[in-house]
Amino acid sequence: MKSNLYKDLKVFNSISKKKEPFVSLNGSNVGMYVCGPTVYNTVHLGNCRTFVSFDLIYRYLIQLGYKVRYIRNITDVGHLENDDDSGEDKISKRAKVEKIEPMEVVQKYTNEFHSILDSFNLLKPNIEPTATGHIIEQIEMIEKIIKNGYAYVKNGSVYFDLINFSKNYKYGQLSNRNFEDIINESRSLKGSGEKKNPQDFALWKKASKSHIMKWQSPWGIGFPGWHIECSAMGHKYLGKKFDIHGGGIDLKFPHHDCEIAQSKSVYGENPANYWIHTNMLTLNGKKMSKSSGNSVFANEIFEGSNKIFSKSFSSMTLKFFMYQAHYRNILDLSNDALSSAEKGYNKLLKGFNLINNLEANTKKSDFDIDKWISNCYEKMNDDFNTPMLISELFECIKFINNVNIGSKNLNIKDKVKIKKTFEIFMFDILGLINETDSNTKKSSDLIQLLIKIRHLARINKNFELSDQIRDDLLNLGIQLNDKKNESSYKLI
Amino acid sequence: MKSNLYKDLKVFNSISKKKEPFVSLNGSNVGMYVCGPTVYNTVHLGNCRTFVSFDLIYRYLIQLGYKVRYIRNITDVGHLENDDDSGEDKISKRAKVEKIEPMEVVQKYTNEFHSILDSFNLLKPNIEPTATGHIIEQIEMIEKIIKNGYAYVKNGSVYFDLINFSKNYKYGQLSNRNFEDIINESRSLKGSGEKKNPQDFALWKKASKSHIMKWQSPWGIGFPGWHIECSAMGHKYLGKKFDIHGGGIDLKFPHHDCEIAQSKSVYGENPANYWIHTNMLTLNGKKMSKSSGNSVFANEIFEGSNKIFSKSFSSMTLKFFMYQAHYRNILDLSNDALSSAEKGYNKLLKGFNLINNLEANTKKSDFDIDKWISNCYEKMNDDFNTPMLISELFECIKFINNVNIGSKNLNIKDKVKIKKTFEIFMFDILGLINETDSNTKKSSDLIQLLIKIRHLARINKNFELSDQIRDDLLNLGIQLNDKKNESSYKLI
Repeated sequence: MKSNLYKDLKVFNSISKKKEPFVSLNGSNVGMYVCGPTVYNTVHLGNCRTFVSFDLIYRYLIQLGYKVRYIRNITDVGHLENDDDSGEDKISKRAKVEKIEPMEVVQKYTNEFHSILDSFNLLKPNIEPTATGHIIEQIEMIEKIIKNGYAYVKNGSVYFDLINFSKNYKYGQLSNRNFEDIINESRSLKGSGEKKNPQDFALWKKASKSHIMKWQSPWGIGFPGWHIECSAMGHKYLGKKFDIHGGGIDLKFPHHDCEIAQSKSVYGENPANYWIHTNMLTLNGKKMSKSSGNSVFANEIFEGSNKIFSKSFSSMTLKFFMYQAHYRNILDLSNDALSSAEKGYNKLLKGFNLINNLEANTKKSDFDIDKWISNCYEKMNDDFNTPMLISELFECIKFINNVNIGSKNLNIKDKVKIKKTFEIFMFDILGLINETDSNTKKSSDLIQLLIKIRHLARINKNFELSDQIRDDLLNLGIQLNDKKNESSYKLI
Repeated sequence: MKSNLYKDLKVFNSISKKKEPFVSLNGSNVGMYVCGPTVYNTVHLGNCRTFVSFDLIYRYLIQLGYKVRYIRNITDVGHLENDDDSGEDKISKRAKVEKIEPMEVVQKYTNEFHSILDSFNLLKPNIEPTATGHIIEQIEMIEKIIKNGYAYVKNGSVYFDLINFSKNYKYGQLSNRNFEDIINESRSLKGSGEKKNPQDFALWKKASKSHIMKWQSPWGIGFPGWHIECSAMGHKYLGKKFDIHGGGIDLKFPHHDCEIAQSKSVYGENPANYWIHTNMLTLNGKKMSKSSGNSVFANEIFEGSNKIFSKSFSSMTLKFFMYQAHYRNILDLSNDALSSAEKGYNKLLKGFNLINNLEANTKKSDFDIDKWISNCYEKMNDDFNTPMLISELFECIKFINNVNIGSKNLNIKDKVKIKKTFEIFMFDILGLINETDSNTKKSSDLIQLLIKIRHLARINKNFELSDQIRDDLLNLGIQLNDKKNESSYKLI
């Protein structure tokens, strides 16, 4: 473990509803399970925020010296559209629309999901298990739940018996729901069908003849319910009890409360020590969701193709924008918010890029670097508080700018520390990319430099040189367009 | 379907050992199954050649107007090291070495495999099913083989009964082996163990207690044999009979002959109409293989980190090199061969990049463009003959170069056709990338241009300009290093 910093990490636990010191179950090993996407359409930016937030948590735990086994599943079984286990299978429905086989839908949107997350520079999980890849494990777990008396078979389907469960365990702990309320709520659901009680949820559903994604089971041909895959895969790769289970806030109920019920009914306990939930991304003040149509996709932002926004914004601007809010707060996406994040991110990068060329000496710095470094860790240790961390980074940027204009002094050893600390927090922990390093940016800077030299040559009436630069650029596919004292260029 | 070109496609079928006209089973739909990698280590360049070749076939079928369902599996069940079903599970062995869980090995090398293939600009398959994701389907198929009398259960394992099978069907059709020879060969194998006959192969193996990757089955806890996954997944996604089954030449025997036996024993027929096998990539004349250590990895070539090669070569150079040989011929990798491919590829790109600026008029071209286009298709229709196609492309490059220096005439309509045809063959079919477009290449060219201008400035004793260029470059993070009349640069 790196230093003793890890001892100070505090994590907000959705179970206890308070910040708790983070104590791992197995020393320097941490097991973390995060609910991944259902791959039947493009993930919207709200989903991206969840995965960006858990990437931060993963990266910070690694930075503290933990060896993390990070599991993020792919839900590729087409679960039913409604929470009451009715409706059509989402993936098969999409397959019909696209006239392809369900697993082609799965492949297409899994590939797309990976490519979107790659654009945010997220680390890949250690295992990305699929629901269809763990049907046997799900069946085995359902068999155990039945054996323990918490589920019943009806017409080839299996349902979790919540009334029986509630005799021995508390249900609805995460969502903080009273079981009486849940019963009352579920009474209003249309038709419980073959369920003993309407609030029971499906562990296995019998497949109709026309249902495409189905498997043989002890109860006949069918497919697993929505909640069992995470319990089965979490157990397979992290054991009965692991450290962190996470997901978007909308998964608290019913998904995560059902997961807890499933684990308790087999192993007698909540599968995770810490439950972490990330909050919503709203769009101009309204909830973003696939079904309501009020959603924005990452590529629309990168390409500037959504008319809500005045221009395109880079993936790093978007990520920086997300980190300007704490992961447990609602964050509202708007054109102004992104423009302002872009300015902030550029200011941060500009300051960071100054460090190399700062003048430094052996005198004392006019800034307490060690205190600043410890403040940075303190903010992250406070439940991964990125907005406070960013504010700390800007404290130092202010100092850097002052050193740059010669109004503050920087010690040479401190210069090294500042550079190193920025690299750790900006690149290793926040996972940002120094976009000024990118080749596109570099090409553009180099062309501007050539335009400047050519402009000087023309002032000095060195037309031989100015023509040569024009021709050489043209050979490289870059066409100059001269207007009075200015030149622009286009790629041909 | 685009034009009538597809009617002329001929494919070499490993079953008949001759070129046959390609006739699809379902009109404009084509089903193609290609055996993917076992993800327990890094794929070497020989493996890459197989996937590059099938990418070409996939792209060409699409170009002809077919709707192709391309399935390429991931073998993530750790099969045993030896063909006689003995030895250690390869993935678990690797997991022990890397001190991680087997599915982490799978994830790591699957991610790496994807990233390597991405660097070659290969299209993604429509479905990339995993063996662990289809245990139920494999069990179901084994049950059918047993039911039909072609397999037997022994101590919790299931073996394919080749003697019984050979009473009704021919075995070894692909590898052209005589069953008597196979029996004689397999006698020399050490210990048949519980098999009735040493040549029988495992469909399901009982797992020892220490075996990690294992599943419940009708025969107890175990894991599938090596050959059954492709039969089960091919059937699931492409049906009993599909168009193309492909893989590297080393898979002909036993893997593909066993697959055929499995399908015949359940469905009474060979699963694929056309079997396509790609030949080996040798290294300096010797067979490349993981186990012998005589192998090169793609990244070593891209980074120039393998001492066999004098410098780095780009992924497109490597791909162009592969296409300079026909996929059914052995291809030898060496420094000279790559250097020469690099020259060839640059010549091709240079010629292509000239097209836009060629002077054209309304007079007749000094080159029969339509004949040339039809020749290009003819070469590809001849069992995807890329070396002959490349030779055709160079025929036209010669003409382009002549037009460029004014010694040949180009008609304006033909100019459009040439551009379009080059784009189709170079980018859509061969899947090459115009590297001169890349920003890395562009930055490097721009820096070289600035170095040239600075060099001229120094000759002209314009030290103000030369110093300014040096300082401006440094500001962009590019440090010049002057040596006599030459300057090199490095990024800082």
